[in-house]
Amino acid sequence: MAAEDRVLAGGARYIDFQTDPSRYRHWKLDVDGEVATLTMDVDENGGLFEGYQLKLNSYDLGVDIELADAVQRLRFEHPCVKVVLLRSGKNRVFCAGANIRMLAGATHAHKVNFCKFTNETRNGLEDSSENSGQRFVTVINGTAAGGGYELALATDHIILADDGAAAVALPEVPLLAVLPGTGGLTRVVDKRKVRRDHADYFCTIEEGIKGKRAVQWRLVDEIVPNSKLEAKVAERSKEFAAASKRNGNGKGISLPPLTRSFDDSGIRYGLVSVDINRTERIATISIKAPDASPPADIDGMIGQGAWFWPLQVARELDDAILHLRINELETAMLVFKSHGERANVLACDAFLEANKAHWLVNEIRQYWKRVLKRIDVTSRTLVTLVEPGSCFVGTLAELVFAADRSYMLIGQKQGDNRAPPTIELSAMNFGPYPMSHGLTRLQSRFQADPMDLDRAQARIGEALDAEAAERLGLITFALDDIDWDDEIRVFFEERTSFSPDGLTGMEANLRFVGPETMESKLRRYGTGQKAQFDMTRV
Amino acid sequence: MAAEDRVLAGGARYIDFQTDPSRYRHWKLDVDGEVATLTMDVDENGGLFEGYQLKLNSYDLGVDIELADAVQRLRFEHPCVKVVLLRSGKNRVFCAGANIRMLAGATHAHKVNFCKFTNETRNGLEDSSENSGQRFVTVINGTAAGGGYELALATDHIILADDGAAAVALPEVPLLAVLPGTGGLTRVVDKRKVRRDHADYFCTIEEGIKGKRAVQWRLVDEIVPNSKLEAKVAERSKEFAAASKRNGNGKGISLPPLTRSFDDSGIRYGLVSVDINRTERIATISIKAPDASPPADIDGMIGQGAWFWPLQVARELDDAILHLRINELETAMLVFKSHGERANVLACDAFLEANKAHWLVNEIRQYWKRVLKRIDVTSRTLVTLVEPGSCFVGTLAELVFAADRSYMLIGQKQGDNRAPPTIELSAMNFGPYPMSHGLTRLQSRFQADPMDLDRAQARIGEALDAEAAERLGLITFALDDIDWDDEIRVFFEERTSFSPDGLTGMEANLRFVGPETMESKLRRYGTGQKAQFDMTRV
Repeated sequence: MAAEDRVLAGGARYIDFQTDPSRYRHWKLDVDGEVATLTMDVDENGGLFEGYQLKLNSYDLGVDIELADAVQRLRFEHPCVKVVLLRSGKNRVFCAGANIRMLAGATHAHKVNFCKFTNETRNGLEDSSENSGQRFVTVINGTAAGGGYELALATDHIILADDGAAAVALPEVPLLAVLPGTGGLTRVVDKRKVRRDHADYFCTIEEGIKGKRAVQWRLVDEIVPNSKLEAKVAERSKEFAAASKRNGNGKGISLPPLTRSFDDSGIRYGLVSVDINRTERIATISIKAPDASPPADIDGMIGQGAWFWPLQVARELDDAILHLRINELETAMLVFKSHGERANVLACDAFLEANKAHWLVNEIRQYWKRVLKRIDVTSRTLVTLVEPGSCFVGTLAELVFAADRSYMLIGQKQGDNRAPPTIELSAMNFGPYPMSHGLTRLQSRFQADPMDLDRAQARIGEALDAEAAERLGLITFALDDIDWDDEIRVFFEERTSFSPDGLTGMEANLRFVGPETMESKLRRYGTGQKAQFDMTRV
Repeated sequence: MAAEDRVLAGGARYIDFQTDPSRYRHWKLDVDGEVATLTMDVDENGGLFEGYQLKLNSYDLGVDIELADAVQRLRFEHPCVKVVLLRSGKNRVFCAGANIRMLAGATHAHKVNFCKFTNETRNGLEDSSENSGQRFVTVINGTAAGGGYELALATDHIILADDGAAAVALPEVPLLAVLPGTGGLTRVVDKRKVRRDHADYFCTIEEGIKGKRAVQWRLVDEIVPNSKLEAKVAERSKEFAAASKRNGNGKGISLPPLTRSFDDSGIRYGLVSVDINRTERIATISIKAPDASPPADIDGMIGQGAWFWPLQVARELDDAILHLRINELETAMLVFKSHGERANVLACDAFLEANKAHWLVNEIRQYWKRVLKRIDVTSRTLVTLVEPGSCFVGTLAELVFAADRSYMLIGQKQGDNRAPPTIELSAMNFGPYPMSHGLTRLQSRFQADPMDLDRAQARIGEALDAEAAERLGLITFALDDIDWDDEIRVFFEERTSFSPDGLTGMEANLRFVGPETMESKLRRYGTGQKAQFDMTRV
């Protein structure tokens, strides 16, 4: 299934984004009260593909899948953890960055997807710090080069051993003639605010910078002699824990393996199903509403744990998107559909809004935000079809607004006695799910006239049929039964015939209307692609 | 000299950015009181290179060089003009965009430089509207496709003939599998605020949009039947002229041809000289300070006209940068030097500051801003050397801050009795020359601590030696005579050995620290490069 020239290790048929600590080969997660330690100790024979070894704590996508899993579990399973230490399990080396042999032999598509996912993981660290109060501290005991230093850049505080050897470096340009692929340049100047000419020097020397200059130039936060390192780490942990706004207490909920089955035509999860039409190059993602109302209270939600509908759907949808991105490279279009009892979706939204101060509800809202961001940066045409029986309301209506285009049926279909489809807005469409540039999808949609946003907000709680939704600007096209099949068929055929790269560039431009933030800048840079080496400068 | 596979038409040895209305082949510039008309009537046999015809008002770089010249002359030579009408001289076609055959046969380097220059020209239209009060109105009498519509997008007001045929279109993705190369996507959604799903539809249909929908979707400002078109154009001209803040009166100053001579080793202008070392791949740009104080008053400045030092240097530097970019593709590095009487440079700055309300002084300041922006986006390593005898003060100090790195000598050189170099700040370093993202170079430089900006500002008017400049963070490295030659030689050798593409990406990332604006977004998009057409979506 994985469209790679390389062979996946261990006879795997596709790249799997599901894992858990019992299966980690590269990381150790230890929790000690308020402080967790994530130790990177890459198994050099544990590469995702055959053909390279992960020496010197270098990493490939498989290593990062474990890191992403650990960060996610820290948020859901460990509400008490307020500080996460990132450390190396190797002697005198922190992390050598993305494995060079892996990159050298990877397809362009794999490199782009690798950088996209590793970027999302690093954004996830920053999101956890900002929105869950889990502060990340990196302890660099040796060389942190390339992606190794980029990982540190995503954390809140960088401690560098002052031993004459430990150093940070971004040697990509001088050594490999590529750009740092996981936000290194942007985070150096925009997050850590290293002066641009210092950054220029730093990014053009292979050996990196150590000692006092690393602090003076803001590349790290402090240097500490080895003899005092553990005491300093303990001191900083205590400080950051004391300042954390993490408000979880007691036990977390566990994230058990997803229930899913793959076959040639797609994936079935509990609530999400993916149908892949390889001839038409279209994957249809259908989401099922809850069968029942949400639990009456927090205890009920905790009892449901990972089966609480909003969390289960988010996990399944996240996995489906990741799977399609990297294992189904020829899929040109993702079509979102939904079905089931819309009132139950809205009741879940009401629950998420009423209990937003609770740590777990907060985590679920933040997770939905991240899943929707993952969709925003997915380089496939996104289409949402609002048909009879669908439940694009509240949180699920974000899939209408995330789409490049949406189509909604006016009235009923011949021979189908289901009611005409409606969409409905909830509080969830007006704040909790900002895009990477900080605006909600509706704010971004209604740049021309902010009054349109007010008009939409005034209709919260109202079932809007196709014509009302079109008047409010919430959908692209309202079609009646006579036109529906033909128009959509022609659109699908045309769209999937266009240049994939052309569409990728066009969609990326049009999706992110409005301001830019550091995170939205990070979207763009670094594909891991080797630069052509001729001498013209353009 | 032009490193193109194609042959320049008419036996030209390089691409020349100098022209004037008497030599235009593609545009007519008519001035009638407050209203100027720029008529595009491309001579299809007037292509810059051999091998294609410019049918249907399609354009190449040569056409755009004339447009840029006309826009520049409107600002300096026509202070009375408040409204500029952009019109087509062809029947039923406005402009078919960049010529497809030209693009198909152009080198990657030429396409990048072509898009960069056309982008700068369109940004220049917007700059003239915003800062010189010359409002641009496009009158579309037929098809405005691709770059034709992108040109309209850069203007303030778009009138579309309502004749059942005239239409606007961005057919690049469906027709050519490339992205619009001159900011079309960004201006559609970010400037005109077309809703993103409408933009998605618009950018994927070849035939474009006409009539009412073009207005409803904000693609144009109004549609007018042909019978009423001239009356409407006259009405809008009158309105825009009345609302203009253009405060010029009387005669403009003329922009005569630059005095310059080319030889194998470079270019000599009156005040700027360019020495090209093709073995080392370095071009050294030296700027000479004025020999005398500036004129005593406005009349004196007008008397000097194009020979007023700040204007002459800006014109020469602009031409030199454009020449190096497109005709000297293997040059890896631009090294800025200066020499002459620093007091005279500072006196010019004082003149520009004291008289900034005068229309011509305003134009000169705005022009310097644009020249410096042109330098910011030049994809060569920029280095400034501050040596004895140099005059990097005020406006010229911006070349220190625009550089990727700067080096300044501590003390004197052995056997050279000139005084140690100093730099000096003036008001011109704190406002009039913002970068494309709206910050001055010093604001952008001092992101980490805005107090650094205050500290620098407090030293306006003080001659700062290398150590003082280094302490203030104004230069990258202060070196004494013992290290100077070796350090700089090693840096030059190393730098020019790196991957050009790697450096281009790195420098572009590091130069623009801080926020993004529409203009800074426009920097990034569109290289005119044909997308690879395989079916994977990444």
